[in-house]
Amino acid sequence: MGAVIDGCPAGLALDMVAIQQAVDKRKTGQHSFSSARKEDDVVEILSGVFEGKTLGTPICILIKNKDARSKDYDKIKNVYRPGHADFTYQKKYGYRDYRGGGRSSIRITAPMVAAGEIARQLNTELTKTKTIVFVSQIGRAKYDVSNLSETGLSEEEIAFLKNSDKNLVQADFEKQVDKEIETTMVDGDTLGGRITTLIENLPVGIGEPIFGKLQAELSNAILSINTVKAVEFGEGIKAAAIKGSEHNDEFVLKTEKAATQTNHHGGILGGISTGERINFSVYFKPISSIRKEQQTLNQKGEAVEIKIEGRHDVCAVPRAVPIVEAYTNIVLADLILKNRNATI
Amino acid sequence: MGAVIDGCPAGLALDMVAIQQAVDKRKTGQHSFSSARKEDDVVEILSGVFEGKTLGTPICILIKNKDARSKDYDKIKNVYRPGHADFTYQKKYGYRDYRGGGRSSIRITAPMVAAGEIARQLNTELTKTKTIVFVSQIGRAKYDVSNLSETGLSEEEIAFLKNSDKNLVQADFEKQVDKEIETTMVDGDTLGGRITTLIENLPVGIGEPIFGKLQAELSNAILSINTVKAVEFGEGIKAAAIKGSEHNDEFVLKTEKAATQTNHHGGILGGISTGERINFSVYFKPISSIRKEQQTLNQKGEAVEIKIEGRHDVCAVPRAVPIVEAYTNIVLADLILKNRNATI
Amino acid sequence: MGAVIDGCPAGLALDMVAIQQAVDKRKTGQHSFSSARKEDDVVEILSGVFEGKTLGTPICILIKNKDARSKDYDKIKNVYRPGHADFTYQKKYGYRDYRGGGRSSIRITAPMVAAGEIARQLNTELTKTKTIVFVSQIGRAKYDVSNLSETGLSEEEIAFLKNSDKNLVQADFEKQVDKEIETTMVDGDTLGGRITTLIENLPVGIGEPIFGKLQAELSNAILSINTVKAVEFGEGIKAAAIKGSEHNDEFVLKTEKAATQTNHHGGILGGISTGERINFSVYFKPISSIRKEQQTLNQKGEAVEIKIEGRHDVCAVPRAVPIVEAYTNIVLADLILKNRNATI
Amino acid sequence: MGAVIDGCPAGLALDMVAIQQAVDKRKTGQHSFSSARKEDDVVEILSGVFEGKTLGTPICILIKNKDARSKDYDKIKNVYRPGHADFTYQKKYGYRDYRGGGRSSIRITAPMVAAGEIARQLNTELTKTKTIVFVSQIGRAKYDVSNLSETGLSEEEIAFLKNSDKNLVQADFEKQVDKEIETTMVDGDTLGGRITTLIENLPVGIGEPIFGKLQAELSNAILSINTVKAVEFGEGIKAAAIKGSEHNDEFVLKTEKAATQTNHHGGILGGISTGERINFSVYFKPISSIRKEQQTLNQKGEAVEIKIEGRHDVCAVPRAVPIVEAYTNIVLADLILKNRNATI
Repeated sequence: MGAVIDGCPAGLALDMVAIQQAVDKRKTGQHSFSSARKEDDVVEILSGVFEGKTLGTPICILIKNKDARSKDYDKIKNVYRPGHADFTYQKKYGYRDYRGGGRSSIRITAPMVAAGEIARQLNTELTKTKTIVFVSQIGRAKYDVSNLSETGLSEEEIAFLKNSDKNLVQADFEKQVDKEIETTMVDGDTLGGRITTLIENLPVGIGEPIFGKLQAELSNAILSINTVKAVEFGEGIKAAAIKGSEHNDEFVLKTEKAATQTNHHGGILGGISTGERINFSVYFKPISSIRKEQQTLNQKGEAVEIKIEGRHDVCAVPRAVPIVEAYTNIVLADLILKNRNATI
Repeated sequence: MGAVIDGCPAGLALDMVAIQQAVDKRKTGQHSFSSARKEDDVVEILSGVFEGKTLGTPICILIKNKDARSKDYDKIKNVYRPGHADFTYQKKYGYRDYRGGGRSSIRITAPMVAAGEIARQLNTELTKTKTIVFVSQIGRAKYDVSNLSETGLSEEEIAFLKNSDKNLVQADFEKQVDKEIETTMVDGDTLGGRITTLIENLPVGIGEPIFGKLQAELSNAILSINTVKAVEFGEGIKAAAIKGSEHNDEFVLKTEKAATQTNHHGGILGGISTGERINFSVYFKPISSIRKEQQTLNQKGEAVEIKIEGRHDVCAVPRAVPIVEAYTNIVLADLILKNRNATI
Repeated sequence: MGAVIDGCPAGLALDMVAIQQAVDKRKTGQHSFSSARKEDDVVEILSGVFEGKTLGTPICILIKNKDARSKDYDKIKNVYRPGHADFTYQKKYGYRDYRGGGRSSIRITAPMVAAGEIARQLNTELTKTKTIVFVSQIGRAKYDVSNLSETGLSEEEIAFLKNSDKNLVQADFEKQVDKEIETTMVDGDTLGGRITTLIENLPVGIGEPIFGKLQAELSNAILSINTVKAVEFGEGIKAAAIKGSEHNDEFVLKTEKAATQTNHHGGILGGISTGERINFSVYFKPISSIRKEQQTLNQKGEAVEIKIEGRHDVCAVPRAVPIVEAYTNIVLADLILKNRNATI
Repeated sequence: MGAVIDGCPAGLALDMVAIQQAVDKRKTGQHSFSSARKEDDVVEILSGVFEGKTLGTPICILIKNKDARSKDYDKIKNVYRPGHADFTYQKKYGYRDYRGGGRSSIRITAPMVAAGEIARQLNTELTKTKTIVFVSQIGRAKYDVSNLSETGLSEEEIAFLKNSDKNLVQADFEKQVDKEIETTMVDGDTLGGRITTLIENLPVGIGEPIFGKLQAELSNAILSINTVKAVEFGEGIKAAAIKGSEHNDEFVLKTEKAATQTNHHGGILGGISTGERINFSVYFKPISSIRKEQQTLNQKGEAVEIKIEGRHDVCAVPRAVPIVEAYTNIVLADLILKNRNATI
């Protein structure tokens, strides 16, 4: 698995330990509710970095997956697993790599996470931007995010998040989550959920006015994550039911710079950042690989039964946090660099 | 206002009347609840078409806006209207065109609608794909869309939609909508809403596996429409709360082609179309230009009061239907053409 | 005819008179040796500019061609003119616009010249770069360019060029050119030639190291001009016959900045500008529309005779000077802007 | 060193032996006149291929360079070698990888050669296109190419080329080349030269009409090869000195398809292939690393003497043949695939 980063400016001193940590964070095996598969994702950088600093030339990242036992996949080789991309890949290309889900496997996001961490380091170098990403829903267990554009997380919640292996922000919510996971695990079933991202201190002016709007670029990236089914910015779907007078945020002078009194708009107006907190939530469907028996077809078009044994998670949402964070930082890096040419 | 279409194959006989009609459909002035401004959007095609057929070379579309009275905008010239892009444009570029909202005006979507209609004609020529786009929510008035992936619209609803100037599908729902609009108009306030799109008969295999997933490309396009705050595909946000066994769709043989028994996935798996009905909904914030008095800042940073008089709509959602349809068809055309090179 | 410029930063004060002059310079009708066709190329800017300054948003240029009498082209409608793109367009698209050569006509370069002038103004704003473009060969009449990387043009030559309607730099050379043209005109035949470009004061560092090398981007642009058959940089084809010790330029300190003693390399090393003068020459084939009778085929595959009457030039090379200059400035603008993100 | 190929259709059965052979062909060490450095370029394909066939997803190629002894480069670490990119990289990025010339090293073309061979296999699968690439000049020794658009190579020449480790086509010419190399080697000097490419049987219609002209895309690719100083198509620079009546090729019926009587145009009209033989020549400057002592500067701006010892070639042109072939095939593959969407 690998990635090539093009367009990273020269002179960025990379924190290689942080890159490896970011990738480790998304690995399977660390949570009780996730699979027993142990991956050893060692990040190698093959080009574009010299004596610890970026050279301005393409950065090639390589991560070797040592534990992909292809024989595990023989049973599902000719079968379309419900909810998976087996069927669409077969029909599109007339041919597919059935091992480990191939390119639709969540494992290919590892190099994206490494790339995202490089983007995060660049964003931190160029601005004071900070992204906070956490799990705000697992199945029916929900943490209320309706006021977050305004308030952000509390210091306690941020501290809790740092130590949470499931990327949660509250002990009470964690109890609900644990219960939801336990019940579901017993049933051999799976869960989806929601991840919320807050972007703090992004300067005014990031995002392009027509094509390349900030929310459009973020959506494009986020919807590229398999199993994502929805995304909402600021007030999101609630915005459709309230009135203009309730949704509009008045401009005021805070300290010496202009800002908005409230933050219903969620930090973006006209596709461009306002300097206020950006807030978006991403919804994931439940994992498709369930342990229950399912009806399906094989490649010949015959009806068959499938029961996916092997090593699979109950819920992938906590593991998707570093992926959402990575994609967010990659989009921000692109648009921050692009904005340097906004004026002469 | 204009658009340039690159990559349209040669030999497509264009229905120019349909292009003009599509553009007319998004014009202001036709609904009781929308503004009195009358635009005369005559579509001119300056290149890429010869004797009624596409030449394979870039198609340039030009629409002249005859009724943009720039003097109307003098009052708001130096003021940041709440909810508008005035502030972000000014900060990004140090400079902005204050007339009619400039590039953030919904009026610039007119040539996109013309381009979308050309894309639709191409999609119809190459496949049997059909898009059905309608308003499913205005303010608090909602039409239930939860089962639409499965059932689609009824014939009566499709017939109703054809004659609905507000792009609705039911008389009962229309009554609720009218009431919502009337109340809001009296208050000088505005409304948001939701548009739902069904894509029927898209062949299997459309969309790219990693970058260029069908839902990612659609999101990118749709979130480029100003005032859109959320998008959901298939089960959407509900998918986060249900279990894998409930969400998975079993593959079965329908007629001679493989298909799914149910359609929770909403026609897309792994970023690629399955051949089942695609269903997505888009949420719009209420219009920012309200007639009520608001506090804001001017460019000098002084607190000022603003009351936007002029010609403005109560709700832009019905007028956004042809825009959503256009963006959808443009994305589909790109991916349908791209898919021709999926195999040798 | 039109062009859309994307990516021009905001805040550039445009000299509209210079843009119109640049376009006028490439018009037919001003030289004794060129055709009698009078075009009235009025440049209109439809978007991206407000109160004389760029807005940072796409700039749309439109030039209406008032004098393209399509009836003149009826005779050649179904015939493949030797040396023209009629045949390849017909075969590629199954269909073509036969009027005025359609997209292969040199007339479509008018908006490119306008765009190039905007790029030139941007380059002048951001750097001290200056391009000098002139005709160095018409048919067999040649002006010696072999030492120009080193010496540049003299002040007298630059002054001569400013007043030369054929874009020449010397009276002696002009006499040879005039003789070549007169003889050829009598024969109803046509001539090719060479254009040489000098880029002065381009800062060090412009151009990208692998894809996007300065000479590669310039070649791509220049070879997009119809009738161009070759391009050479610095020593060009002579470089192939000399030795490393003759070609290498030693680095020395000139004033306070590093530079090369000689300039065989022609201002580019490793695809990136060195700060020395850049020197490249472009070779044009003779115009294909000759007044002599030629054998050819019509679209049915029947042998026919063709004699192109109408209005056509003896030599298009002087008119191509503003086009080469425009393409050069567009490439430089792109790479100058890109270079702003070379370092953090 | 690596490359990622995006857009290769699924279902192409790859000849892995041919890919390795293509890469081996460009290695140093095989000619008496080239350096003693032995590289062991084993091609690994990390993604995009399954059971010997392309999957339609990105193909990642990796070639590990086992013999790049970085200590050899310590002497030149802070010195700007004349004719090299050391100076421009340092100035552009403020920082550079001095080992082995970094990204300006010809060694990074190895994965491009592998990618080019995959492109060649695709082109062969989709069309009958064949590229013949050979050395037509080394220093002052020249093989006459002026009639090749018309005649192509003889069967004897093609047979000779197959067995020539210097990629020559004639024994007589080889003698001149050997003499030129021997003399130069004794002097510790280096040579440039010319490579000629013939493209046979390319179908009519390949290339795009405005941006993406066949010759423009080829130039862009070819001028991306370090040390290339000029490129000419068809009659090339000679075209500038002959008349329209001499240059024009009349259209005639050969067998049942339209073609040209002569081939001065070199197989391309209006940027699109005519079906006739394409012929272009590329000019290389001599290698910059000479064994003679040279004056230069170090990074502090101090004058220093440099004598490059180490392992370096007298002439790189024979080794550039597979590179030119690779770049040609990559461009053709892109345009052949693109042409599939030229018509509906």
